[in-house]
Amino acid sequence: MSSLTLINASNIIDSALKAARKNNFSPLAIAVLDPGGHLIAFKREDGAGIARFDIAFGKAWGSLGMGFGSSELTRRSQKNPQFINTLTTISQGRMVPSPGGVLILDHEKAIIGAIGISGDIGENDEICAISGIEENGFIAANGIVS
Amino acid sequence: MSSLTLINASNIIDSALKAARKNNFSPLAIAVLDPGGHLIAFKREDGAGIARFDIAFGKAWGSLGMGFGSSELTRRSQKNPQFINTLTTISQGRMVPSPGGVLILDHEKAIIGAIGISGDIGENDEICAISGIEENGFIAANGIVS
Amino acid sequence: MSSLTLINASNIIDSALKAARKNNFSPLAIAVLDPGGHLIAFKREDGAGIARFDIAFGKAWGSLGMGFGSSELTRRSQKNPQFINTLTTISQGRMVPSPGGVLILDHEKAIIGAIGISGDIGENDEICAISGIEENGFIAANGIVS
Amino acid sequence: MSSLTLINASNIIDSALKAARKNNFSPLAIAVLDPGGHLIAFKREDGAGIARFDIAFGKAWGSLGMGFGSSELTRRSQKNPQFINTLTTISQGRMVPSPGGVLILDHEKAIIGAIGISGDIGENDEICAISGIEENGFIAANGIVS
Repeated sequence: MSSLTLINASNIIDSALKAARKNNFSPLAIAVLDPGGHLIAFKREDGAGIARFDIAFGKAWGSLGMGFGSSELTRRSQKNPQFINTLTTISQGRMVPSPGGVLILDHEKAIIGAIGISGDIGENDEICAISGIEENGFIAANGIVS
Repeated sequence: MSSLTLINASNIIDSALKAARKNNFSPLAIAVLDPGGHLIAFKREDGAGIARFDIAFGKAWGSLGMGFGSSELTRRSQKNPQFINTLTTISQGRMVPSPGGVLILDHEKAIIGAIGISGDIGENDEICAISGIEENGFIAANGIVS
Repeated sequence: MSSLTLINASNIIDSALKAARKNNFSPLAIAVLDPGGHLIAFKREDGAGIARFDIAFGKAWGSLGMGFGSSELTRRSQKNPQFINTLTTISQGRMVPSPGGVLILDHEKAIIGAIGISGDIGENDEICAISGIEENGFIAANGIVS
Repeated sequence: MSSLTLINASNIIDSALKAARKNNFSPLAIAVLDPGGHLIAFKREDGAGIARFDIAFGKAWGSLGMGFGSSELTRRSQKNPQFINTLTTISQGRMVPSPGGVLILDHEKAIIGAIGISGDIGENDEICAISGIEENGFIAANGIVS
């Protein structure tokens, strides 16, 4: 397994922000976490609300927590709301059922981290997450890692 | 960006209370927060329940957290209950999906604080919030700031 | 037992602030609580730090929690640090062993509320607390109520 | 009052990291917060431990909470350990009595944010914090703001 360096994480964030500005999305908060769920790097654009760090962090943490992106968690939460409520409480809010949390894989498909983005609607947040990962030569997994 | 002084915050509360008494609403609790979500001033009328501080505070905090008033959060919570449950946990109960949390903007439309009111039904709480802000020459934003 | 109205609480805060300005103390945060430990009114002067609400609230709450002012809690904390640490954790930080929390008594010496002040050194915070209570015709108890 | 942009915050972190590498200090975690105590940007160098985010964040948050840098909090904690224990609990661990938390002031000496660094000994963390602030044309306050 390779590991995600600070330079990798910073580049992924900057690429995701470039995608957001090109698409004229709302101001974003972007967190990149290591496989243990610990923050490597974070940026919050001017104008993003004060809860955006926690939401972005939770999308990434929940992706690592379950082993799949937060899009999949969103689908499961619609099927089984009670279980998601429990996960929310168990994780102290760090499992956020909204798109924008995406796993970062290396070329052997090992999970080497996760990105979480909040600020626009979840679908737009996810577009930026995937763009940031792929532009830096990593593999983005927004669903179940097969 | 201008900043909301203690005198501004106190005057907004007193104007909101005047509106409440004129309309004969139930006893209110009213909190005014700075842009970072920290309390500047608070008043709880005689007879308002002991949970009213936390509810009023949460309406204001949640407005700052998301960047829009708690009316908009109420609408989103009806569409996507799971996401709101997560926000409630993330914020330790400081995002209250009920009208009465309103952003306070200066004349350049910068967010300089928020007011949260609880005591009557949410719609009435919101009437007082908007009245308090506007009577003091600021701009009230109960939805998304455009 | 009489009860402390919002008007009483607001007047006590304004009197305490007047004392602070006359003495040229640092910017203060001032909370007045009912006998159940619930906030009635609060003001934070421009320039007071963002933790000042919690400290001011904790000085007042701890006074009600123990039945004596926070000066007495400070003395006991120096004699028995372990017990105070436990109280701090039990109360989730709402028992602050520093002067500035003072009980408010009516003329039958019944406890009708408490004030907590933070911003300057504890001894100066306490001067303002006592001044605010006494100027409004109530009895201040910064130690054990006899 | 001016405000600290994402670009400012990122530049301050990069300057602080440059000082760390020049001095051959241990791997650092560096957080920059807005005046309300909310994260703007963060970087953790490869090899820095998994608690370093919380420590760095806490040094910055505590500086904003009290209105002075964490060096001053360290001195006060040695004089009055009980009070610091209380602050730790009140702030849920976000007041860290170790040097490395420094306030960021603009040219009118208004507090526009704070930096917190953890990874080496506190004195070295503080050297990097001050260097990062000053190299970007802001004023560093590691003690009481006069």
